[in-house]
Amino acid sequence: MDSARTRVAADSTKVVGLVIGALLVALSVVMLVPVLAEIVARSNDWQAFLSSAVVTGFVGGALMLANQTEERDLTHRATFIVTTLGWLSVSAFSALPFAFSEVDMNYTDAFFEAMSGITTTGSTVMTGLDRTPPGILLWRSLIQWIGGVGIILTAVAILPFLRVGGMQLFRTESSDRSEKVLPRPGQIAVAIGEVYLLLTLLCALAYIVGGMTAFDALNHAMTTVSTGGYSTHDASFGYFGGSFVRWASIIFMISGSLPLVLYVQTLRGAGETLWNDQQVKGFIAMLVGVSVVMALWLAARGDYGFFEALTLTAFNVTSIVTTTGFASTDYTLWGPFAIMAFFILTFLGGCTGSTSGGLKMFRLQILALLFKSQVRQTLYPHVAQTMRYADRTVNREIVFSVALFVFVFMGSILVAALAIAAFGVDFTTAISSSAQAFANVGPGLGPIVGPAGNFASLPDGPKLILSFAMLLGRLELLTILVMFSKDYWER
Amino acid sequence: MDSARTRVAADSTKVVGLVIGALLVALSVVMLVPVLAEIVARSNDWQAFLSSAVVTGFVGGALMLANQTEERDLTHRATFIVTTLGWLSVSAFSALPFAFSEVDMNYTDAFFEAMSGITTTGSTVMTGLDRTPPGILLWRSLIQWIGGVGIILTAVAILPFLRVGGMQLFRTESSDRSEKVLPRPGQIAVAIGEVYLLLTLLCALAYIVGGMTAFDALNHAMTTVSTGGYSTHDASFGYFGGSFVRWASIIFMISGSLPLVLYVQTLRGAGETLWNDQQVKGFIAMLVGVSVVMALWLAARGDYGFFEALTLTAFNVTSIVTTTGFASTDYTLWGPFAIMAFFILTFLGGCTGSTSGGLKMFRLQILALLFKSQVRQTLYPHVAQTMRYADRTVNREIVFSVALFVFVFMGSILVAALAIAAFGVDFTTAISSSAQAFANVGPGLGPIVGPAGNFASLPDGPKLILSFAMLLGRLELLTILVMFSKDYWER
Repeated sequence: MDSARTRVAADSTKVVGLVIGALLVALSVVMLVPVLAEIVARSNDWQAFLSSAVVTGFVGGALMLANQTEERDLTHRATFIVTTLGWLSVSAFSALPFAFSEVDMNYTDAFFEAMSGITTTGSTVMTGLDRTPPGILLWRSLIQWIGGVGIILTAVAILPFLRVGGMQLFRTESSDRSEKVLPRPGQIAVAIGEVYLLLTLLCALAYIVGGMTAFDALNHAMTTVSTGGYSTHDASFGYFGGSFVRWASIIFMISGSLPLVLYVQTLRGAGETLWNDQQVKGFIAMLVGVSVVMALWLAARGDYGFFEALTLTAFNVTSIVTTTGFASTDYTLWGPFAIMAFFILTFLGGCTGSTSGGLKMFRLQILALLFKSQVRQTLYPHVAQTMRYADRTVNREIVFSVALFVFVFMGSILVAALAIAAFGVDFTTAISSSAQAFANVGPGLGPIVGPAGNFASLPDGPKLILSFAMLLGRLELLTILVMFSKDYWER
Repeated sequence: MDSARTRVAADSTKVVGLVIGALLVALSVVMLVPVLAEIVARSNDWQAFLSSAVVTGFVGGALMLANQTEERDLTHRATFIVTTLGWLSVSAFSALPFAFSEVDMNYTDAFFEAMSGITTTGSTVMTGLDRTPPGILLWRSLIQWIGGVGIILTAVAILPFLRVGGMQLFRTESSDRSEKVLPRPGQIAVAIGEVYLLLTLLCALAYIVGGMTAFDALNHAMTTVSTGGYSTHDASFGYFGGSFVRWASIIFMISGSLPLVLYVQTLRGAGETLWNDQQVKGFIAMLVGVSVVMALWLAARGDYGFFEALTLTAFNVTSIVTTTGFASTDYTLWGPFAIMAFFILTFLGGCTGSTSGGLKMFRLQILALLFKSQVRQTLYPHVAQTMRYADRTVNREIVFSVALFVFVFMGSILVAALAIAAFGVDFTTAISSSAQAFANVGPGLGPIVGPAGNFASLPDGPKLILSFAMLLGRLELLTILVMFSKDYWER
């Protein structure tokens, strides 16, 4: 009995190593793309990518060879480890090109930049993007793009089964449905990948029509659909004139913030469709409402006409709420009301099963249901209240799980802000950079981390804290925090 | 049927008027205390108090006469109204002496000062306290003192039955207990009042021993035990030398933050006692832990020895966590770490059934239980998890109610901060003043509302927003917000 158990544990450890190894080998293959770009552009940084690819491929291959096993199933517990370690090691090795290249960052900065990319956060320590080698720019866009599809697959295939953050609400969606539109998980993954690629190509096309070069269009398409927010220019979208690219960007930032599995279902004409999904409807309504109200407010100040104001607010509000983080203008110059509004918008996020971060619309909707049901409970103490969301009964476990997620989210932001402040970072910078990192947004507030700022001048400590905050936020916190409990390590 | 229902509704309205009238008549009697003080001190402001007493007594008397009814019971719904209107009207009339006196405030400032007093918040718009007539100083202390005992009685007798904020957890405590130590609500109220008075006298005695004048000692005793925080000097506790009064203040701020009903039970030797109550133990442990850690940090900076640092941190941490708001020093000069720490401490609060505000220890403990149980639920999906708190099972309703309270608390802080920022108030001032108002603490952060600042320079809009935030926070938010739902007004 004991030896069988030990063998299972050992095999489980081997599967973890095997998966991480395979991820790193795949990453090393992706690193060959910027090698080509650099050679085509006759730049010298192809060596940085080639050596990164060799190191990453070597470590990945070694891990795979050292962990050969017949076992293919992960235990429930090992899934927490493999998810966390997978994201962590991909980020750690994605940092290598930054550290090896002529932009010459130290590893802390490179790790921050890579984590910010992989988690599609979009905070950057780099300046002088307009003079940066094309391979580096392409690499930043690529890691956001693969990080984007990575989190969608994680949210669809892994998180619902780990029962964290109320994600179990979406477990039935792809597994227990009576209409078997997509019977096997592998098929869903392929279909989601196809939709993701299609959206990216459409976005790039729109950007080219809007006047971008093919290189800029491709890079920005990858960082738009992944709601990542890295740009090839220091001025971000401020570099591009005209409102066409802004509205194209608004549409594709939103498209990346909707549950991608719904595109698949809509295209196949079965199951829940994109336009009658409760989460999607709430998300679009919120974006339109906030953008219009802020545009009215901005137009009333007299500096802009209404349509100009609406383009400005819609772009920046969408950028923050979808957790993309592009900037077209420094909205913190609009005054205290805008600053506070964008701080609050930082928390919200898009839909689950998308590339966006934050609290996410379904959790806000569950909280609204909780408010309604508790008001009724207070008024009619003896009538049992039930909650329904998207035609399903919201049970006690879902509410507990969603509530806990929100507390841990808010609490983690405060704790990380305290740790950042301990390095002498001011109040506004500390709390806003912490919030945006957990929500995977990109810009915070103030001259250092605001939309016109740059994270480079922060001390190393806050950079590392923010890097881990991005990872925690990306994996819905509990996936990682569960492993810090005594229960996790007990048999 | 319909006419009977109409009669019940009319009688219920009459009871509301009767209760408000009685509260105002009682308030007008309290206003005679500063009349005496002013006459003894040969000051001119006795006229302000006498005219305030006459106006308040007249309105109260008229309300009582106009609402004569045999009915003595309030409907469940009317209880929400009477609680809210009771606190609102007492605050509105408590403002009269400020508006009528020679300190000559406009009514907005007077209302802010009175609401801050009655809710034991302690934010002030007044400067030059050292030259202010004794009647006004005494009035500020008196309204904090009656507001303190008022909220204890509200928390013990009303909120548990309104089922808001998880307060139903304490319903059994004084009603369904098998050991009938205090069988009737009236007896509990009297016993709590006696303990409150005794604590205040002991505190005043300690302050006199510590070197305060009798007048200062009495005023500070009233604002210490009520965790209110008004002082008779602009420098607050910075005016008094030596560590004796600081440690006395620490002890009595804590004494006012414990559930007063536990003193009664402890003195009568039955039921839950003060020293084995889970909430009290958690609260004391948190205070000691935070004070010691911050003292170590402050001593390590080299400006103070450990005991001196501990006096400083214990006093200021206790002052914020108990939501008193006295200042002995401007702790925001200790740098970003201290600023962020005090911002986080603003949310916590003391125990329920005390004079303190904030989230309160029992809610933090329920959240900790939720975290533990959800981690187990995640790891063992098929084992039902139960939560126990203070030897009681925490059911679904309690968790829902506590969770909702915390969301509404955090959400309200952000919404009010946005409204305050709309008046051009900066980020730090807006968010910290909003948080401290909902938590009934007193000082916020920054030069305007920080421990060395003054609320006078804020525009009228933010002053009114903060006044209502104090009231919302004091009545545990949902008592008031329930009335904004459609369900409340439906039959």
